[in-house]
Amino acid sequence: MAKSKKSSKNASTTSPEAPAPRGFPLANDWKGDVRDFDPRATPGFSGKKAEGREFLLARDAELDELQERLYAAHHGAADGRSVLLIVQGMDTSGKGGIMRHVVGSVDPQGVEITAFKAPTAEEKEHDFLWRIRPHAPAPGTIGVFDRSQYEDVLIHRVHGWADAKEIRARYTAINAFERELAAAGTTVVKVMLHVSHEEQGERLMERLERPDKHWKYNPGDVDEREHWDDYMDAYTRALRATSTVGAPWHVVPADRKWYARIAVQQLLIDALREIDPQWPAADFDIDEQVGRLRATME
Amino acid sequence: MAKSKKSSKNASTTSPEAPAPRGFPLANDWKGDVRDFDPRATPGFSGKKAEGREFLLARDAELDELQERLYAAHHGAADGRSVLLIVQGMDTSGKGGIMRHVVGSVDPQGVEITAFKAPTAEEKEHDFLWRIRPHAPAPGTIGVFDRSQYEDVLIHRVHGWADAKEIRARYTAINAFERELAAAGTTVVKVMLHVSHEEQGERLMERLERPDKHWKYNPGDVDEREHWDDYMDAYTRALRATSTVGAPWHVVPADRKWYARIAVQQLLIDALREIDPQWPAADFDIDEQVGRLRATME
Repeated sequence: MAKSKKSSKNASTTSPEAPAPRGFPLANDWKGDVRDFDPRATPGFSGKKAEGREFLLARDAELDELQERLYAAHHGAADGRSVLLIVQGMDTSGKGGIMRHVVGSVDPQGVEITAFKAPTAEEKEHDFLWRIRPHAPAPGTIGVFDRSQYEDVLIHRVHGWADAKEIRARYTAINAFERELAAAGTTVVKVMLHVSHEEQGERLMERLERPDKHWKYNPGDVDEREHWDDYMDAYTRALRATSTVGAPWHVVPADRKWYARIAVQQLLIDALREIDPQWPAADFDIDEQVGRLRATME
Repeated sequence: MAKSKKSSKNASTTSPEAPAPRGFPLANDWKGDVRDFDPRATPGFSGKKAEGREFLLARDAELDELQERLYAAHHGAADGRSVLLIVQGMDTSGKGGIMRHVVGSVDPQGVEITAFKAPTAEEKEHDFLWRIRPHAPAPGTIGVFDRSQYEDVLIHRVHGWADAKEIRARYTAINAFERELAAAGTTVVKVMLHVSHEEQGERLMERLERPDKHWKYNPGDVDEREHWDDYMDAYTRALRATSTVGAPWHVVPADRKWYARIAVQQLLIDALREIDPQWPAADFDIDEQVGRLRATME
């Protein structure tokens, strides 16, 4: 914490004590519409891009220490705590940037990122949670899902691959799964990166214009884009049905990439602060070990 | 590349064009002894700690771009290229710092780190390579082993858990495995972090003195330390037997953590430069896609 204070130069916008950006957390009885949130907003943060970038770097040290404490205190313990960050969003909403610039700043030894792509033939033979469960985070670690079980109530609803009754059954299964995770000591942080239709168009165009971005472009992205309103409907319904007391959704405005990153970083810091992991006490006699070690040093 | 140039201020020591640190690469007919290498040396680098740290950061951009190119060009391809970095070293030699400060600087989506601890009961029922094989890197990715198959010819020799004949059979199996990897398109980079007995003593003492480091201390570390000479013998024999044309060992002096990090970073950069991955050409008609996308933007 001392470190992050030191590197922040402008107390009014970048101090870790400033109102912290969090995205829009949804109550468990939320009945709104994701379209009511402004994708260009920067709730809780009064700075601009440059300050936002500085803020992100200034908080790295705190996130890093909290993660190391979590690992030190909880890994290997049968009932240890962990964090699961679930990131959903339309194509180009910045999921990769979150992995790289937020998750990527913590020690990779304590983090497992899983990217859930279109399911394989084998995965399709099983219940939709079958491929998800093995990636629940181990005690002491941070698990990160780049897309998740929510694909099965989003793209599946939009394309009619599952009917309304089946989608409702999946909401129920997801809520039960997330209650299970919470009971096992996992703090579940769910984020929808909320990008606007206009901004997505600009970002896809950039992928077409730059040869070093062509590999990220898929003609199917435009097909999905043509279902934009259906997706916003599907997100709205899914978030209403699965924003629970134990695992609320956060709608994070994502038209400004720098803002989305500091908001998600803040959500991770909040989750870890709430766990408040402490350095574990030595389970050996320190003086005895110092003596043994000294004897090997002549 | 332009980026890394920009951030280096002192051309004589920190320019990416300066003689690059690499550790001591071993020839495939090497007959030496690891004790002949000075753990405090900084081969190929004339700067001190501050310059070394700056050099590490200055090269991040190049490593990052090479990794992204590797991923873009090779992931998903049946015969795609990949890199496997194997890191071995005595306790406190800085394996964790390599994971954090070198591997941790690249996009975590393209990297899989596997830490091989003492084998489980199930793993012990199988051949020693059984638990290793599934972690060979997928095309387009960088795999990193924090300890590896080499534990089975190091600690096993030191404690006599395998006899000399069995150890020789394992060298043969390891060489065959690594030839297989190379044939599949994987560049294997093997690093021994070479720390001195004296420096290890200091580092273990620090773990005993700082409450936030107690969790990293294990009384068994002193037991192993008492076998130091046996370990240096075991490393010498293993490196002689498994430094091959396709997968040579590098002895990286590790008493100065900052040096070991820039040396390993350089080895990764070298491996990727040799693969020389290129941004893949678009597999769609760009003008057609621009037209389709424009139509969705009004």
